[in-house]
Amino acid sequence: MSVPAGSPSLTADSPLVRAARGLPTPHTPVWFMRQAGRSLPEYRAVREGIAMLDSCRRPDLVAEITMQPVRRHGVDAAIFFSDIVVPVAAAGLAIEIVPGVGPVVAEPIRTWADLHRLPELTADAIPDIAESVGLLVAELGSTPLIGFAGAPFTLASYLVEGGPSRNHLKTKALMHGDPDLWNALCARLAQISRTFLEVQIRAGASAVQLFDSWAGALSLADYETFVRPHSASVLSAVGELGVPRIHFGVGTGELLSSMSTAGADVIGVDYRVALPDAIERTGKSFAVQGNLDPALLFAPWEATERAVRRILAEGRAAPGHIFNLGHGVLPETDPDVLTRVVALVHEASAA
Amino acid sequence: MSVPAGSPSLTADSPLVRAARGLPTPHTPVWFMRQAGRSLPEYRAVREGIAMLDSCRRPDLVAEITMQPVRRHGVDAAIFFSDIVVPVAAAGLAIEIVPGVGPVVAEPIRTWADLHRLPELTADAIPDIAESVGLLVAELGSTPLIGFAGAPFTLASYLVEGGPSRNHLKTKALMHGDPDLWNALCARLAQISRTFLEVQIRAGASAVQLFDSWAGALSLADYETFVRPHSASVLSAVGELGVPRIHFGVGTGELLSSMSTAGADVIGVDYRVALPDAIERTGKSFAVQGNLDPALLFAPWEATERAVRRILAEGRAAPGHIFNLGHGVLPETDPDVLTRVVALVHEASAA
Repeated sequence: MSVPAGSPSLTADSPLVRAARGLPTPHTPVWFMRQAGRSLPEYRAVREGIAMLDSCRRPDLVAEITMQPVRRHGVDAAIFFSDIVVPVAAAGLAIEIVPGVGPVVAEPIRTWADLHRLPELTADAIPDIAESVGLLVAELGSTPLIGFAGAPFTLASYLVEGGPSRNHLKTKALMHGDPDLWNALCARLAQISRTFLEVQIRAGASAVQLFDSWAGALSLADYETFVRPHSASVLSAVGELGVPRIHFGVGTGELLSSMSTAGADVIGVDYRVALPDAIERTGKSFAVQGNLDPALLFAPWEATERAVRRILAEGRAAPGHIFNLGHGVLPETDPDVLTRVVALVHEASAA
Repeated sequence: MSVPAGSPSLTADSPLVRAARGLPTPHTPVWFMRQAGRSLPEYRAVREGIAMLDSCRRPDLVAEITMQPVRRHGVDAAIFFSDIVVPVAAAGLAIEIVPGVGPVVAEPIRTWADLHRLPELTADAIPDIAESVGLLVAELGSTPLIGFAGAPFTLASYLVEGGPSRNHLKTKALMHGDPDLWNALCARLAQISRTFLEVQIRAGASAVQLFDSWAGALSLADYETFVRPHSASVLSAVGELGVPRIHFGVGTGELLSSMSTAGADVIGVDYRVALPDAIERTGKSFAVQGNLDPALLFAPWEATERAVRRILAEGRAAPGHIFNLGHGVLPETDPDVLTRVVALVHEASAA
């Protein structure tokens, strides 16, 4: 696979990459988690009749979907359109995404024998991912593409539970009941996530975000013992390729200090955590990303604007600030409000 | 309605009431949120064929269900069996509990006109609640009964959304879009919650717990502006009756400091928050309740025991500690494990 020479230099001075590195920017960069997705009518149109996992493996479609919010909203970054189970499926595990349910694993992984059904992921298995990134980087020019992967714990939860779970009972029972198997499973998933990110970076992604969507379901003690080491292994391996690393999870207020030692450059902040508290808990030494409550996009504009301006002001206390929601865009969101937020962030933060 | 004279004096020296007041206890008191419920086969047996809201209005059944976990586990308190929408339904709002879904309000409350469909609650409308408490207090003797009510925000969310909600979009839009209506709705709900608790206290409950189940979905700014004042109004009114007040919500790590100023005596702590952090955030001046991860009841006993002992040790830094889970008992829980946890708490904490 060819690395599009020059793409890192094209985006090195972009507000997103600079903010992630703690460097001054002409304005606060902004993008939205799940900006490529169901809130956009053009997304719903191109996805019509195409299954989620299929759509993630078609470079033409991935490029189109990833570009849609960049064209529409003028955000400062594209986020690679994918699903956290894509690399696990590409590695060979039988998994599907059931509409209205989420990822479903017919035969969950709960024993050493089960683990053998989850092979390592090689770059050869995902030439389409490199191709999608290549198309995007060519089209994006100086706008950075953020690579995307799920963190080992969140992936493990789907694989152990067999699907989405509210209480993660089997996952927690496994980590406490058979730590060796748990660690072996997470090490395998770390290899898979790392490879998935490396392929995106080598094909031209300018940054990456590691999503640990479910980490907020853990106590700090469990997170530190059973989860952080595996996220750290992904982040440190990826770090060798030199792009900024963003790390985010939902409901992680109690974990932020611990998460910040896992090796990311930017700490994503859930909307429940006041940004000043997040900056304090991460020792004022990390760029932060966030953290507008996505529900505030449904409030009268005055309330939205007030919250956006407050978050921009709060973000100035961090070495760098990337404006984002404190959770993904909800499907019911009016996309015009997102466009308006981008304009407000740019105008209100202009140096 | 008659106040069972002497019941407060019978329980005044109980470990639960003493711990709630920050007084020394012979052992750490323990009870479990949702201890009366689906984890118990005897509960499932008596509920067979009886709708939830009906079961909450039959004193014989309420007393039986409330007593079941006291008999089985030897916990230090009974929690009044009810549902947070019981007082709203008793006030006259059309609401039902749909199995597998939760409370459903056919005509949600979103306008001033809608608000007129939610009358105040009077003690006369709930003679059965006083009767249930009376039966319980007689049977419980020196074991305290904890009264139960939902906090205004959580109730409002059900009423505004029309049912359980993940993102509380309409609720948040209402608080920001029409603060006067929001505050009027919450003031009405505070009157209803307060009356529901007062009836229980006058009938003999020795403590109360105000549940703000969904508060963890709020940013701190929204909580302080739109939610805490209404919880405070319930807690302060109830405080005049002299029983200790426990206040709990799920995922409230960011709110604990603010919640502790709402007027409760005991702060319930979600399992995600390390107990030392909770004690610190509440200024070391409140008794705390919690906070074992309910998922740890599914782990090997060694892991459960380790966590119980750690939480007991951590709780000693607070003026008082009531052992509990950091969320409700899950229906799949093996009740024998709960019994074993009670014995462990008693033995490990014995002075």
